[in-house]
Amino acid sequence: MKKRNEESAFSAICNAQRIACAPFEFEAARSLRDFGILAALDKAGDAGLTEEEIKAVSGLSDYAVRVLLNAAEGAGILRTESGRTSLTKTGCFLLNDPMTKANFDFAADVCIPGVAKLSDSLREGRPAGLSTLGPWEGTLYPHLRELSHPARESWFGYDQYFSDNAFSDTVSRVTALHPTLLCDIGGNTGKWAIRLAKADSTIRIRIVDLPEQCETAAANISSAGLSDRVECFPDDVMSDTTLPGDPDVWWMSQFLDCFGEADVVRILKKVRAAMKPGSRILILEPLIGNQKFPIGDRCLAAFSLYFTAIANGCSRFYSEADFRRFALDAGLEVKSVENGLGIGHTLITLTRSDAS
Amino acid sequence: MKKRNEESAFSAICNAQRIACAPFEFEAARSLRDFGILAALDKAGDAGLTEEEIKAVSGLSDYAVRVLLNAAEGAGILRTESGRTSLTKTGCFLLNDPMTKANFDFAADVCIPGVAKLSDSLREGRPAGLSTLGPWEGTLYPHLRELSHPARESWFGYDQYFSDNAFSDTVSRVTALHPTLLCDIGGNTGKWAIRLAKADSTIRIRIVDLPEQCETAAANISSAGLSDRVECFPDDVMSDTTLPGDPDVWWMSQFLDCFGEADVVRILKKVRAAMKPGSRILILEPLIGNQKFPIGDRCLAAFSLYFTAIANGCSRFYSEADFRRFALDAGLEVKSVENGLGIGHTLITLTRSDAS
Repeated sequence: MKKRNEESAFSAICNAQRIACAPFEFEAARSLRDFGILAALDKAGDAGLTEEEIKAVSGLSDYAVRVLLNAAEGAGILRTESGRTSLTKTGCFLLNDPMTKANFDFAADVCIPGVAKLSDSLREGRPAGLSTLGPWEGTLYPHLRELSHPARESWFGYDQYFSDNAFSDTVSRVTALHPTLLCDIGGNTGKWAIRLAKADSTIRIRIVDLPEQCETAAANISSAGLSDRVECFPDDVMSDTTLPGDPDVWWMSQFLDCFGEADVVRILKKVRAAMKPGSRILILEPLIGNQKFPIGDRCLAAFSLYFTAIANGCSRFYSEADFRRFALDAGLEVKSVENGLGIGHTLITLTRSDAS
Repeated sequence: MKKRNEESAFSAICNAQRIACAPFEFEAARSLRDFGILAALDKAGDAGLTEEEIKAVSGLSDYAVRVLLNAAEGAGILRTESGRTSLTKTGCFLLNDPMTKANFDFAADVCIPGVAKLSDSLREGRPAGLSTLGPWEGTLYPHLRELSHPARESWFGYDQYFSDNAFSDTVSRVTALHPTLLCDIGGNTGKWAIRLAKADSTIRIRIVDLPEQCETAAANISSAGLSDRVECFPDDVMSDTTLPGDPDVWWMSQFLDCFGEADVVRILKKVRAAMKPGSRILILEPLIGNQKFPIGDRCLAAFSLYFTAIANGCSRFYSEADFRRFALDAGLEVKSVENGLGIGHTLITLTRSDAS
C-alpha cells in the first residue's frame, strides 16, 4: 500500500467526490457563460453583484439564480459574501483566458452530449457520439462545415487557437531550412501554406488533401494571389497512390492525430517511399507528456476522448514515445525533437533511416 | 483585486482547465467502471496490471485501453509506471466508497445526459432533461418505477444510501419523544415507517402520500404485519384539503427538497393549520452549509442541479437559513437544529409560533 498512501485518504475522497460532481459543475459554468453572468460578474470586479442584479442581467428567476450560484460557488468559480457575489480567479480565467475558453467552448458545444457515448465508442471502435452533432456516420471530418451554431464556431475556435499560436514559431523553423518545395500534407483550407508563402517569397508549396479540401484551398490561394507558388494535389493519403518525390520538406501539422496508430505508420511509409535524398519530414503535434505543465498533459489526455467518441473512434493525441515507435516502424529516423512551440506543440524532424 | 489575489494565478488557471476537462474525465471514470477495469485494478493492488492484462479483463482494443488509461491518469484515478497500471487512492474511493459510488452512479446513470439541458431548464422553469429518461413531462416522481436499468437502480441507490444511513439516528430521536401518533408526510414506500414501528411497539404511524404511493406502502405494511398500527392517508399535500390534527409528531424526511420555496411554505402552513397544542414538526434534510466538510456542501450544491434539470425544475437542497425563512413565513418557530445525523443530515424541530 506504499504508493497509494502517498495521497491522504481525505484528499483522495475529496478528489473522488469532485469527479462525481463534475458534470453538474461543468453545466453550471456553461449556464453562467450562456446567461452572461460570468461576463457581468467580471465587469463588476471585487464589488460583485447582488442576487437582484444577477437576476436583472440574466433574466433568470430567484430560484434559477440561487441554484446556479450555489453550484458555481462549490466549484470555486465565484463566491458570495454578505449578499454580494464576485468571481474568483478561476472564474476570471474561465471567461478570459483564451486557452481555457477554447477548451471549455469545445467541450460544451462540440463534445457534450456525445462524449457520454464513450463506452459504446470504446467497445465498437467507432465514434458513437458523432450522431449527436448530425445525421452522420464514419468520421466528423467531411461534415465540419455542416456543424450548426455554436458547435461550428467552437470547433474551429479550438483548432485555430492552437495552430495559430504555433504559427510564427513554425514559420521561422521552416524558412531557416530554405526549402525549394514544401509539401503540406493535410493542408486543409491552405491557411498555413498561404501564411508561409507570404513569409518567404521564394518558397513553393504543394498542399495534399482530399479533393473537397483542395477545392476550398485552391480558392483561398487564388484569392491571396499565390496560385503561381502554391498548388494543390488532391489525394487520399490512405490510398495506395504514389506522391511526387520532389519536395525538400514534408510538413504535417496537427494532422496525424486524426489517424489511428496503424494508419499513422501507413502514411509515414507512403511519404518515406516518395522522399528524395536529403529531404525531411516535419511533424507538428501537441504531445501528451511534453507539455510545460502537468495540467497541459491532463487536458490533452482528456480531450483525446473527443477523437474516440465524436471524431473518428480510433485516434488520439500521441506521446513522443508513440512517435518514436511510429518512425521506427515506418523506416524513419528521429533527427530532432523540439518542444515548446506556440502553446505547447512539439516539432519532430524525421529522415529516412537509410539516408543518414 | 485583493480577494481574487488570494488564489495564485497558476492554481486558478489549473482549476479553470480542470473544469473544462471534467466531462471527459467523468466519462473515462464511467467507462473504467463499466468495463470492470476499476475492479480489476483494485484487486491487483499496488502490483497493478499490464496493458495486456487490462485488455484481457475488459475485452477492449489496444487503442481503447490506451486512450482510457491516459485520460484516467490525468484525472488522478490511476497511474502507470514501468508499464504497470495501478489505482490511486482516488480510484479506490471511486470504486469502494459507498457515498462516492452512490453519487457517481446517480450522476452517470440518472443525470447524464439530461443535466446538459440545464440552461433550458433554468430559463423555462421546467426539468428540460427529464425527457432523456423517458417520454415524460412535469416531474420525474410519478415515473420512478418506470426508470430503465441502470437508472432505476442508481436512483434508488442514491436515495436509500442517504436515508438508510440516517435511520438509527432518526429513530432514536423520534422514540425519545414518546409520540402516540406520528404523521409521516411523504412516507413513500413505508420503509422508514415500518422500521420505526418495529423499533417502538407502542407508536402509531400515519403515512400521508399520493394515492399511488399509499397503495405501495399499504402492501408493504400489510406484508410486515403492521396494519394495526401503521395506516395510510392518501392526500396531495399541495391540495387545499385539511389534514387530521391528532398527531404528536409530524415527520418530513428528504421530502421538502422536492418542492420549490413557495410550495415548501405552503406545505408547512397546511401542517401548521392541523397541528394540535404541544405537537411538533421534525424535518430531516441534508443542508448546504451544514455538512461536516466543504466537499459535502459542494456535492449537495452540485447535485441540486438534478432537481433543476431532471426532477422538477423548481427545487433544490436548501440551507439552514432557507428553512429558518420558510418557518417564519409559515408561522412556525425553530426550536432546535441538530446536525450530523447519518451521513450529513440535519434534524430541524419546529413548533407553532403561538404555542411557545
